[in-house]
Amino acid sequence: MKLDQYPRGVLVPVLTPFQRDLAVDAERFVEHCRWLLAEGANGLAVFGTTSEANSLSIAERMSLLERLIEHGVPAGVLMPGTGCCALPDTVALTRHAVERNCFGVLMLPPFYYKGVSDDGIHASIAEVVQRVADDRLRIYLYHIPPMAGVAFSLPLIERLLKDFPRIVVGIKDSSGDWNNTQALLDSFPGFEVFPGSETHLLDALRKGGAGCISATANVNVAAISRVIREWQGADADALQDGIARTRGAIQKFPMVAANKAILARVRDDPAWDVVRPPLRPLAAEAKAQLFQALEALQFDFGRRVATV
Amino acid sequence: MKLDQYPRGVLVPVLTPFQRDLAVDAERFVEHCRWLLAEGANGLAVFGTTSEANSLSIAERMSLLERLIEHGVPAGVLMPGTGCCALPDTVALTRHAVERNCFGVLMLPPFYYKGVSDDGIHASIAEVVQRVADDRLRIYLYHIPPMAGVAFSLPLIERLLKDFPRIVVGIKDSSGDWNNTQALLDSFPGFEVFPGSETHLLDALRKGGAGCISATANVNVAAISRVIREWQGADADALQDGIARTRGAIQKFPMVAANKAILARVRDDPAWDVVRPPLRPLAAEAKAQLFQALEALQFDFGRRVATV
Repeated sequence: MKLDQYPRGVLVPVLTPFQRDLAVDAERFVEHCRWLLAEGANGLAVFGTTSEANSLSIAERMSLLERLIEHGVPAGVLMPGTGCCALPDTVALTRHAVERNCFGVLMLPPFYYKGVSDDGIHASIAEVVQRVADDRLRIYLYHIPPMAGVAFSLPLIERLLKDFPRIVVGIKDSSGDWNNTQALLDSFPGFEVFPGSETHLLDALRKGGAGCISATANVNVAAISRVIREWQGADADALQDGIARTRGAIQKFPMVAANKAILARVRDDPAWDVVRPPLRPLAAEAKAQLFQALEALQFDFGRRVATV
Repeated sequence: MKLDQYPRGVLVPVLTPFQRDLAVDAERFVEHCRWLLAEGANGLAVFGTTSEANSLSIAERMSLLERLIEHGVPAGVLMPGTGCCALPDTVALTRHAVERNCFGVLMLPPFYYKGVSDDGIHASIAEVVQRVADDRLRIYLYHIPPMAGVAFSLPLIERLLKDFPRIVVGIKDSSGDWNNTQALLDSFPGFEVFPGSETHLLDALRKGGAGCISATANVNVAAISRVIREWQGADADALQDGIARTRGAIQKFPMVAANKAILARVRDDPAWDVVRPPLRPLAAEAKAQLFQALEALQFDFGRRVATV
């Protein structure tokens, strides 16, 4: 696999559907992935925060990845999340993704222990690299301190880039802090920086950002994709304004439940409205408020297109 | 198993030894457990925070538990940690512990998602209870917000006690907040409250506390056990003062690494000085400071007794 082949653009942290008994709904998952690609997704960051990946067992994650590839989703568009608390789990998932030719992996730092040193996180990544021992490995760091409680600091990233060139190649910045995204873009030229939201997508693209990886792309990927395709066009700012407003309306609610509620309506498929504990589905009142806010923005609830 | 048979007293959140290549050292683990029992531990809360349990795979945890029981450690003194981020993992570990007749399980809430509702945590526990479906199940809640970032609030505990009587029977309170421990003791008579430290052990015992589950019991269980045995005696306050000072000296350093460094010296076994990333072993200078502080307190580094 050549270094330049990885997708840039909008990557979707794919929602994971569950059956009423909370079992993974593999069929609906594959169908959703194909629909997202048909709608314009450049890649699929399966098994992230929006995917409830940490609510899945290791076996469930591996099985879903196999299923996707078996059903024709190209491994070359996949960036599965593989970072777990336990080194053996991270190694197993990462090795599996590399062996299946996924273009990269999105790696959370081990997130149980808080207040750990940069040294400790560096050692974790180093152990994974050494144990996976495969030239095809491409690691995208997953920086999401509001959830993980553990961060990839700028000095740590600098060290990782120095020690693992061509392996540590990018980052998803879900800090929610545009200053941090700017600092990443300014500090590490060539490093693939994906903001974890489309709120500042155009700003990021103008500074050399790689695109975005955003929860709301599960329900709005076509519009986000258009900003990326037309980022140098005359309408770019207006298009950006549109996706930022949609994002703003959705992120007032718990992200996973809100996206599942919207998707259930967009796809006319109430089965999407199931989350695993500790998450809860959106209550009826919140759902009504969310839908009303989106309707006020002329959000398109009618996209029931056939999948690729 | 009768309800009254569970141990009260000092339970040790057992350190997990690793080989140089970071593989679990099962033999040394069993030996350490036997030594702790010989030193006076009333129970073993294996697979907690101090055990680096979240740095172990599910298979490693199950295998270690099997090994302990096979080697004669009575299941009736074991309270393994079983709370994971993913429901299938929590169910698998909990079912395994119950089937092996462990007297209880210590259950972290799912800890990846932050800001989850009490409803969501309640649903998590309810799913585990329903899926394990075994009358022998005894759940001790593991409240450690500084690490988990997710808490068992008093109203949530009240609800759990109401919905799962005889199943949710106790708590390890590692909030580090004595006011919270007091509120638990005052609010829920009969509920087994174990402070996560010996700092206020005597205060807790005087208010009906069940004992303590403390990291530093890995290296100081004999002295902590004595406070529990003699809590109504004339020397109780002096004994309490002693264990609190020892704890105070150790907790200035990262707890897992500090306890492993002390144990390596106490057992004259440098192999103990290995942690899994993201934790790091204590640097030489910190170790010297720690040992000096303990020597000033006349800490007994010489207990190399034979195990039971």
